Amino acid sequence: MNSIERLVALLSKLPGIGKKSAGRLVYHILDGDASYAGALAAEISTLHESIKRCSVCGNFTEEDPCPICSDNGRERNVLCVVERAQDVKVIDDSREFRGLFHVLGGLIAPLEGVHPGDLNIEKLPDRIRSEGVKEIILALNPTVEGDTTALYLQRFLNEKLGTGVLEISRLASGLPVGGDLEYTDRLTLSRSLRGRIRM
Amino acid sequence: MNSIERLVALLSKLPGIGKKSAGRLVYHILDGDASYAGALAAEISTLHESIKRCSVCGNFTEEDPCPICSDNGRERNVLCVVERAQDVKVIDDSREFRGLFHVLGGLIAPLEGVHPGDLNIEKLPDRIRSEGVKEIILALNPTVEGDTTALYLQRFLNEKLGTGVLEISRLASGLPVGGDLEYTDRLTLSRSLRGRIRM
Repeated sequence: MNSIERLVALLSKLPGIGKKSAGRLVYHILDGDASYAGALAAEISTLHESIKRCSVCGNFTEEDPCPICSDNGRERNVLCVVERAQDVKVIDDSREFRGLFHVLGGLIAPLEGVHPGDLNIEKLPDRIRSEGVKEIILALNPTVEGDTTALYLQRFLNEKLGTGVLEISRLASGLPVGGDLEYTDRLTLSRSLRGRIRM
Repeated sequence: MNSIERLVALLSKLPGIGKKSAGRLVYHILDGDASYAGALAAEISTLHESIKRCSVCGNFTEEDPCPICSDNGRERNVLCVVERAQDVKVIDDSREFRGLFHVLGGLIAPLEGVHPGDLNIEKLPDRIRSEGVKEIILALNPTVEGDTTALYLQRFLNEKLGTGVLEISRLASGLPVGGDLEYTDRLTLSRSLRGRIRM
């Protein structure tokens, strides 16, 4: 294997990049300026050193605690639980939520060998007590794993902190804005019916 | 900007990668092993040093002349002219062609400021003479720029080497295999009619 083939092999391990598009990327980098390739290589090589997990919420960050955890302008009694660090950014960018986050680092998936003990769950009750959190929003994907994890968290938190102490909710599931009834799958439709909102 | 944002900005300059997919890639690299990021960074940083242009054909290569130019098992009197180095691989992989290649490094596009002098054309007549090339296949994209460049090359070579000395052809243009007449655009259809093959 020459350098081109080795880089194609590495790039095609990335999500959404097949061998063909990896080839396009390599030739684009080769056609371009060596300084671009240098900058790209430098950022990738230092990424793991400069970005750590926040010790409070589990988000990716350069400083610990992360800018969100140390932001005093946020509501500290509402906690949004997400699967992955990238979900923090998505929800924060919506500007609909101004509370704190907690990153699980995955979802419970027994078939893939992911059990509650593998996730950032153990610290959650202590964090809820020390921050004085009153409300938990479970912002997990509407999938089998997301549903399982949400149910587990509900039971776990009620057990550790007492039933009814926390207000626990999940994101609404239903038709996407601009969506079309005709092209909506049966499960989404049944969820949007069950969760219908009185006008 | 933190490291994540800087890497997202760099990756979204690559073709076919928007800000959103660049974010996915960065989080994938972060979630993954640091050794993968290290290998990726190392390959990108050395790419420009280890890969050069072949001084004979213009293809990207680690050795000069490239493995194709120095392969004695190839027909040396047929030359396939392509736009970019990645086209060499595409045509070579088809196993339909066993001659030599010549990479132009672009197509004539006066509106974008690309003139014949910017391309790897000047060396072509000498190469044809010294290799004893009898046939030229112009494997250029069926676009305005490809057509312009093909016409220019035809005239240029006839002028330099004498009309009729070389057999010059272009790739056939028409319906793709497995394509559908109904979804074929008018230009492709008219080309496939003009280039129809007697049965």
